[in-house]
Amino acid sequence: MLFKKENYQIKTNSIGFYQDLEHIDGIGISSVSANLYVGKKRDEIVIFYFRNGANHASVYTQSKILSENIKWNLENSSEKIYALLVNTRNANAFTGKEGFKSINNIATILSEILSKKQIQDEEEPKKIKNKNLLFASTGTIGETFPEKKISSVIPKLVENIKYVQNKYVWMKAAMGILTTDTKPKLSMEECKIAGTPVKIYGLAKGSGMIHPDMATTLGFIFTDAKISGSILKQLLKKNIQNTFNAISCDGDTSTNDMVSIFSTGYAKNSKIKSYKDKVLENFDKSLNNVLKNLAKSVAADGEGSSKFVIVKVEKCKNENDAKKVCFSIANSPLVKTAISGEDPNWGRIIMAIGKAKVNVNLKKLNINLGPYKIIENGKLFQNYNEAELGEYMKSQEININIQMGTGKKEFEVYTMDLTKKYIEINSDYRS
Amino acid sequence: MLFKKENYQIKTNSIGFYQDLEHIDGIGISSVSANLYVGKKRDEIVIFYFRNGANHASVYTQSKILSENIKWNLENSSEKIYALLVNTRNANAFTGKEGFKSINNIATILSEILSKKQIQDEEEPKKIKNKNLLFASTGTIGETFPEKKISSVIPKLVENIKYVQNKYVWMKAAMGILTTDTKPKLSMEECKIAGTPVKIYGLAKGSGMIHPDMATTLGFIFTDAKISGSILKQLLKKNIQNTFNAISCDGDTSTNDMVSIFSTGYAKNSKIKSYKDKVLENFDKSLNNVLKNLAKSVAADGEGSSKFVIVKVEKCKNENDAKKVCFSIANSPLVKTAISGEDPNWGRIIMAIGKAKVNVNLKKLNINLGPYKIIENGKLFQNYNEAELGEYMKSQEININIQMGTGKKEFEVYTMDLTKKYIEINSDYRS
Repeated sequence: MLFKKENYQIKTNSIGFYQDLEHIDGIGISSVSANLYVGKKRDEIVIFYFRNGANHASVYTQSKILSENIKWNLENSSEKIYALLVNTRNANAFTGKEGFKSINNIATILSEILSKKQIQDEEEPKKIKNKNLLFASTGTIGETFPEKKISSVIPKLVENIKYVQNKYVWMKAAMGILTTDTKPKLSMEECKIAGTPVKIYGLAKGSGMIHPDMATTLGFIFTDAKISGSILKQLLKKNIQNTFNAISCDGDTSTNDMVSIFSTGYAKNSKIKSYKDKVLENFDKSLNNVLKNLAKSVAADGEGSSKFVIVKVEKCKNENDAKKVCFSIANSPLVKTAISGEDPNWGRIIMAIGKAKVNVNLKKLNINLGPYKIIENGKLFQNYNEAELGEYMKSQEININIQMGTGKKEFEVYTMDLTKKYIEINSDYRS
Repeated sequence: MLFKKENYQIKTNSIGFYQDLEHIDGIGISSVSANLYVGKKRDEIVIFYFRNGANHASVYTQSKILSENIKWNLENSSEKIYALLVNTRNANAFTGKEGFKSINNIATILSEILSKKQIQDEEEPKKIKNKNLLFASTGTIGETFPEKKISSVIPKLVENIKYVQNKYVWMKAAMGILTTDTKPKLSMEECKIAGTPVKIYGLAKGSGMIHPDMATTLGFIFTDAKISGSILKQLLKKNIQNTFNAISCDGDTSTNDMVSIFSTGYAKNSKIKSYKDKVLENFDKSLNNVLKNLAKSVAADGEGSSKFVIVKVEKCKNENDAKKVCFSIANSPLVKTAISGEDPNWGRIIMAIGKAKVNVNLKKLNINLGPYKIIENGKLFQNYNEAELGEYMKSQEININIQMGTGKKEFEVYTMDLTKKYIEINSDYRS
């Protein structure tokens, strides 16, 4: 099945954007409610089922305190995955041995039911083991994991699995993994590997505080390309750097962050020898696009955001310095509040550059806000026009561009402004 | 002159606290208005004059972009200082060569007028040079420095210098160095050096956004002890670590931060050989108290703050790790908004510990909020009572105590909550 051209169109919904996804071979999807958000009608349990298995790679949070599902994945999950189970509402973090055991119990039930499904649906049924499963959780920290509620809906969840997807199935799944995100996050690309067309689909959830807690970023990438787990790992590690690792909402890091990629191999492309293989060139770019679109939509939908902000630092000595300056600006409450106030307060940008602990050559420093020059060679631009800039600051997307004049490297970071609504959302008492 | 006992009393004004200061030998003070805040009746220019000179040491901002007054100090100021001139409203940062030249011009006028004052008032008048002056600025970045306005009030400023101080003179000076601080910051201690009583007085200004710009922290310590500049430097560097370097309002760093200490030598204590000299033991402690009181009052008066927060990390492998965990909690917008919402949301504290990139031994981790145990040996405390904690969160001072269980070192950090008022203050358009 080929893509419909219109799906490439990025659909914007206020400052969010998403693409419609279609069918992709080898993946079954289902989502149900386990009544975890009592009184709210929504799905919280989503399964992605790979009937013929999928090669897999994941990257996890850098937090020193890991949720129990992530610990479980690290200890148990193999390269070959048959299902990814996602739950919201409860992060299964700081839940101790019990939380870990809950995942194990659910895994045992799920692998058994999926093995039966194999016998029912497949010509050559496989026995699915616990190690063929992967778990993602997001939600409250420290509350008892609702094992019983989740395990009781597993039969229905598996029963509802659809082998043919359309945009509605994907949208339902994309909505099912959200917490307080205000918009679903979906992205897609098609490309060719040595002449064979392949698809790359992705879903994400971003910064939303659920019942009590914190933003967790989850990203799931699905492709029908045939790529080994170890090459997927290298591709993911490489492409995460300027995508999911280039966003910041408030500088906080969750216990549950994970980004995973699954390849079903249905596209039957020729064998790939290494992640640097020339035949992967287009795939590599397309994967980066999908990850970048998802990452951007996470930043744009950051809690309470009214503006999407892109910070680019160019002509820098090295990429690491560029990154430091980007994040120093993107995480500065003073810069972010100025943006929410639509104030072109470039003094704060200078403050944030200065505090990044990166050497600055003032004589070569340029700062642009959108198309407008502010600082040229370390001096206020002679045609600096504050009224013009004030107009620009009313835009929904703000571009901050810094040229350090110390080299040739660059980095770009995506974030949003800091608003009263952020405080409102996050200072509300949990109950 | 001996201290009056009542001055030791810390006077609290809402969440701020200050002490009354008295006379200290060898220091003259004066403050005037140069009409820098047009339409507002307040002083913005303050001079501290040392009629017989003072030994001096300063520490400056770690920002890579320095204000012009700090550059000037670094290039020009000697160990022997006759006057410190402070201005508010304009940071003299990103003002280039012109801003630097302005300081130089003001220095030339000031040193000349002070030399005349020496002839007029002193038996053995000294010729005061530019290098005997020190400058502190705070306010807007990038605006032309108001050299003419400032230099025109210098004669009046010097004419008004008072050699005898009382609490009103100090209060006037403390108010004159503020920007949008809501409270003056003054602290004092007396102690003895080998039997000789000495005084340590201090003033500070903290996080206030002025006209357009950012928080600058300034701290000035005055003592009548007789201590060399190099020993002052070592004492200041040592004692700044757990005082001014242990506060965080929003994680932003100014181009203008500076803390200086001046010793007039009027107390005529015996000669001190090294900063580790045993006779300095009490002085060292008292200096730390004065710096800590000022630092705390800066944090308590952080922009928009409604609560003062103390984060203490104990039983840690090393001090650096303890500091990392402290600041990870103190700078977390999610923790700070929970505090402003009076929500004992300990899940966010755990998140902030996890993201600090310090190894965590969950089995030994303890978390207390005020007198209440929350986490004991990595588990929710069995008598955890959320209602009790909810009551505690209504306090004006919140104590977060973490025991890492990985060693014996500790660190303590002072901060405040993050409120809608912070966003209001900082997202208001500058004009």
